[in-house]
Amino acid sequence: MSESARDDGDATPLESGVPGVLHYPAAFERIIDLIRRGAVATARGEPLRRLAFPPVVSRRVIERAGYLSRFPHLIGFVHSYAGDPKRWARLEPLAASGDDWQADQRISDLVLPPAACYPVYATLAGRDLDAPALFAVEAACFRQEATSEPGRLRSFRMLELVAVATERYCLDWRERRLDRIAAWFAALSLDVTLEAADSSHGDASSKAELRVPVHGPLVQPVVSGSYHADRFGLAFDFMCADEVGRSACVALGLERIALALLSAHGPRPAAWPAPVLAALANED
Amino acid sequence: MSESARDDGDATPLESGVPGVLHYPAAFERIIDLIRRGAVATARGEPLRRLAFPPVVSRRVIERAGYLSRFPHLIGFVHSYAGDPKRWARLEPLAASGDDWQADQRISDLVLPPAACYPVYATLAGRDLDAPALFAVEAACFRQEATSEPGRLRSFRMLELVAVATERYCLDWRERRLDRIAAWFAALSLDVTLEAADSSHGDASSKAELRVPVHGPLVQPVVSGSYHADRFGLAFDFMCADEVGRSACVALGLERIALALLSAHGPRPAAWPAPVLAALANED
Repeated sequence: MSESARDDGDATPLESGVPGVLHYPAAFERIIDLIRRGAVATARGEPLRRLAFPPVVSRRVIERAGYLSRFPHLIGFVHSYAGDPKRWARLEPLAASGDDWQADQRISDLVLPPAACYPVYATLAGRDLDAPALFAVEAACFRQEATSEPGRLRSFRMLELVAVATERYCLDWRERRLDRIAAWFAALSLDVTLEAADSSHGDASSKAELRVPVHGPLVQPVVSGSYHADRFGLAFDFMCADEVGRSACVALGLERIALALLSAHGPRPAAWPAPVLAALANED
Repeated sequence: MSESARDDGDATPLESGVPGVLHYPAAFERIIDLIRRGAVATARGEPLRRLAFPPVVSRRVIERAGYLSRFPHLIGFVHSYAGDPKRWARLEPLAASGDDWQADQRISDLVLPPAACYPVYATLAGRDLDAPALFAVEAACFRQEATSEPGRLRSFRMLELVAVATERYCLDWRERRLDRIAAWFAALSLDVTLEAADSSHGDASSKAELRVPVHGPLVQPVVSGSYHADRFGLAFDFMCADEVGRSACVALGLERIALALLSAHGPRPAAWPAPVLAALANED
């Protein structure tokens, strides 16, 4: 850790020693908190149910959602040591040499969440909603990414706005949410573009992304708006208005948005232009 | 999720469906944030370096710290799937039957942090400090606990105040920090006791705990103050004042403290006594 890492107002994240995992100074955390509040405020007036999820999630929920089938290589599975202490005493010396000391590890009931929204669908299992259900949820997520260029983190925080409703409601809602967030990013002087993205499901689902420069000229998606059609309604058995429930989510990558702001306006938030700071607060 | 989970000011955590993992409504998160700020404010005037760590940490750091030797059964190890998609297509159908479909999983370079402070010592490796180094760090931690009574979580947030200095400084500092936090808890109308705890190391290290009722009459430690003697100075090779560095940490279990407040004052923070709310803010 360099001396510049002291809480001197520099928000630049610090390397942790492992790829795709960063440490965050206080000034960075203040940006994250403002983005979190500002993002929820773009949906002000909507009756959002706000929930914070921990950084582990039921493996069964992720299996049921179909994520395991599509992206098995991205999941972080939580294993634990199921042996007794005596056996451990024999295994432990193997750790230093990299030998097969983890032989007694067992897969647990938990994985690291690849996205924040999955527990929402699980909690709706068996319900028949008579009105749209709207959520704002957040979790520290994990993906076992193969590369670690700027913005490509293995551990990152995701805030998701989620709608469970009819198809028509979900599609309109996603468009409104993305438009409002794009307008907010423009007010933050971020060079934002809205692009269709491949949803790779071969069904009525679709995906759109907001992309901004996150590190110099490197442009990455920082928000994705997905319409899942009836995928989660079928997987988790919930209905809306007497049909299989449809769902949509708008997912914001909090670190990427913060990195984009740092890249655009410099490492010290206190020195950012006043209109940017005012737009970042974005609260009533 | 019951209807009472809407953001109606009820801070009671919700069951997630897996033991020791809870979901948190917005009112609970506001308490967590106030505890976080208030805890750091008990050390106001100290030149704390504030860092937020993600919910994964280098496995090598945890091995080097000696945690793996002492508590192998508590660690959550992150594994990932290292096979190719073709093989996955053969393995996946086994998942539903609970068979050995995870055969191609490999242990990764990451574990879930059993406590927040370990990266601090790693970042000091090779340093020779000429003055005490003080930190306030936070991480979502994980322990593969065998039971899940109230307050016994597998995933929980820990805020730690950390001192790396001489023995004399560390011991005095720990006492001051615990005294200040105990006084703050008393102002929050929590029935707090300070007790010596077993540090189980057979060396100059020692541990003290602040305990409060967290669920009805169930008393649990919510803060622990540990003096590590030279354990981490030796393990991570850092010096202070030309001796092997000593360290101490004061660790606050944020969920447990919040649960204690809910147990003492009721599920709706807006209805708590005014002196408790004033003490909770605890800021200048």
